[in-house]
Amino acid sequence: MTVTDSWPMVDSSTTAKQTANHLRKLVEGSKDVFETEESNLPVINMSIGDPTIFGNFKTHPLVLEATIEQFQSYKYNGYNNSTGLTSARAAIAKEYSEPEHSVNFTQNDVFVTCGCSGAVEISISSLCSPGDNILIPKPGFPLYKSCAESRGVAYKQYNLLPSEGWKVDLNNLESLIDNRTKAILVNNPSNPCGSNWDKQHIQEILDICDRHKIPLISDEIYNGLIFSGETFFSAASISKRVPILTLGGLAKRYMMPGWRVGWITVHDPLHVMTTVKEGITELCGLLLGPSAPIQAAIPKIFEGTFNAEYTKQNCDQLEANANAIFQGISTIRGLTPILPRGAMYLMVLVDPSLFDQHLSSGIEIFKNLMHEEHVQILPGEAFDFMNSFRIVITPPKDKLVEAISRINTFCNRHYI
Amino acid sequence: MTVTDSWPMVDSSTTAKQTANHLRKLVEGSKDVFETEESNLPVINMSIGDPTIFGNFKTHPLVLEATIEQFQSYKYNGYNNSTGLTSARAAIAKEYSEPEHSVNFTQNDVFVTCGCSGAVEISISSLCSPGDNILIPKPGFPLYKSCAESRGVAYKQYNLLPSEGWKVDLNNLESLIDNRTKAILVNNPSNPCGSNWDKQHIQEILDICDRHKIPLISDEIYNGLIFSGETFFSAASISKRVPILTLGGLAKRYMMPGWRVGWITVHDPLHVMTTVKEGITELCGLLLGPSAPIQAAIPKIFEGTFNAEYTKQNCDQLEANANAIFQGISTIRGLTPILPRGAMYLMVLVDPSLFDQHLSSGIEIFKNLMHEEHVQILPGEAFDFMNSFRIVITPPKDKLVEAISRINTFCNRHYI
Repeated sequence: MTVTDSWPMVDSSTTAKQTANHLRKLVEGSKDVFETEESNLPVINMSIGDPTIFGNFKTHPLVLEATIEQFQSYKYNGYNNSTGLTSARAAIAKEYSEPEHSVNFTQNDVFVTCGCSGAVEISISSLCSPGDNILIPKPGFPLYKSCAESRGVAYKQYNLLPSEGWKVDLNNLESLIDNRTKAILVNNPSNPCGSNWDKQHIQEILDICDRHKIPLISDEIYNGLIFSGETFFSAASISKRVPILTLGGLAKRYMMPGWRVGWITVHDPLHVMTTVKEGITELCGLLLGPSAPIQAAIPKIFEGTFNAEYTKQNCDQLEANANAIFQGISTIRGLTPILPRGAMYLMVLVDPSLFDQHLSSGIEIFKNLMHEEHVQILPGEAFDFMNSFRIVITPPKDKLVEAISRINTFCNRHYI
Repeated sequence: MTVTDSWPMVDSSTTAKQTANHLRKLVEGSKDVFETEESNLPVINMSIGDPTIFGNFKTHPLVLEATIEQFQSYKYNGYNNSTGLTSARAAIAKEYSEPEHSVNFTQNDVFVTCGCSGAVEISISSLCSPGDNILIPKPGFPLYKSCAESRGVAYKQYNLLPSEGWKVDLNNLESLIDNRTKAILVNNPSNPCGSNWDKQHIQEILDICDRHKIPLISDEIYNGLIFSGETFFSAASISKRVPILTLGGLAKRYMMPGWRVGWITVHDPLHVMTTVKEGITELCGLLLGPSAPIQAAIPKIFEGTFNAEYTKQNCDQLEANANAIFQGISTIRGLTPILPRGAMYLMVLVDPSLFDQHLSSGIEIFKNLMHEEHVQILPGEAFDFMNSFRIVITPPKDKLVEAISRINTFCNRHYI
């Protein structure tokens, strides 16, 4: 039987419809602007949190060597345990344990994922059912929303306070909790804020989790990328009671986000996470984790004596960049940069009352700064934070100086 | 304020609860049997579809070389486009286009995923909303069920007919369709059946899709692994009307499933898949795909002149193994092997009326054969097919001969 009637447009699922890369949508919506540009002025890209673009931040040669060695061994071409290669899980457990703070991970507490994105997806979907809600930071990394929405999980955004080093507005956080709140997610050091919280503040957040018996998801992908005088405190190292899913990965520490290796470590001081760990195991079973030869390199990577010096050099360069941008932007009337203490980002607050329509929102700044000065930043709207923009602090110094000069020109052009 | 009251056990989400690796559960439920064994008789593992275990199937050195070259280039350490590296998408489009059959993929039709598992997950979740259903084969690879269940999608299993080379029972398939059926999934060549369908049969399946306006998901991960006299037909090469999501990957063709690189190609002759492709794009945005340096190697891998000879050698070895197992099992009373025509598996039907309780089900065979003879197969129950078991045909010849001898001993012991 030959069928000749026409096919209707095939509809995508509600799952697909409720899954959105908010950042990409925002950027692509402005693509026309960029593609019609004449390229007399080279674009300075300060928009993507990818430290590898300019060549000044590189993964260490010994990381590469350890990885290639595993590929060449022919030993890791087969399937792994879906929660990760045992040697990788053990190495991660050892690396992130803090015995002096009673954090003693074993390999069974570690779940290796497809990038830290995979860790975000699985941690949210293991704790939150459709119709539940999760509390996420504002400003915050948009993937948290996307992963929640894709699984039919609602989100509520708690405020971070720029005037207090981007600490959580604790009253606001606690007021958002209801009986369907199944997780509180924090991101420290923060993208987009570049903040690094002190021990006391993390304890204050944990106290709220404890009072309401809500587990914490702590995205610590920027663990270790902090500036002089700062100490990084993992939430697990402070929590004596609250169960914590800590999210991490190789991406930022070793400057190769494209390799896609992340993990979840489960801190469970009161032994209440057995069911959740089973759930994480099942969810890991759908994708079977990231590339095995790279996982196999993790023990050697962590053991490398280069680590301390390599991380210090990266942090020094990031901090010097952060300071240069901060000082440069500080001199521009109407812009208020917030000095970062870690990670790879600097947020700039904008007083729109001092400018014409070209700076009336983060989106307008994003479009017009690109159009007029070929400097690409991300609008605060990408992180649900109005009248602001985010600068990535990884470009080389000369590019930063040039970018600040162009931003200055742009602002001067649009004062009222 | 110090909190001292106890924490209840934290519950996992319904998402986690409805996500299950059925295969692992089945195997782990019998783990005690294995771990208490004395190891006088070495175990012969014919259970896992991983061709790399025994060292007789290896990825080609030039595949390795192409990959290492990309790692060493330092060019692919950053983030990719979430749907895949452009050069990889273009290479996959070119490799799997069949201009002589009007299949002309462009890079925009290709979505690179975290293993073919990721392709299964995204294809199902892009087409099926919670409450919808998908038709999947029985016997069939259990990941299809897991991915559906995890997203709240129901599944119905259509019968494959062992007496007809594991063709689809078309009447049964069509009878299962209802107004919430959003996709039909086929797997050709098949895991666990080792079948390879002819053109006419694929057309018959497409006709059903066409009559009911239901897209086809065609898992063709074993594309190319077929035996002498056989021709592999991709569903896309036959379909002039029905939209098809074809699932593929590097895993089986190049013998490195642990590298985790898969893809979806969208065949859309009537241009009805625009919305679905947008949905796939969004779903890809959650995880950002597999490791970038491996993706970057794909063009060079596909261009390698070694491909034809390498694939032929692998297929010849697989076919020789299949024939040896088939002949060996054929001589065992009560067992009926089905000769495979491709892939890496052979299904054995069992007549339980000829045996005692030790062969009363696939699960019993699985447990008792391991316990008594240290031969590990997978029970038919793993694929929802009763009174059968699956043999992986990748072990070296001497191991196969030994395994068949042990299976013979086992059966002799339990005849009634």
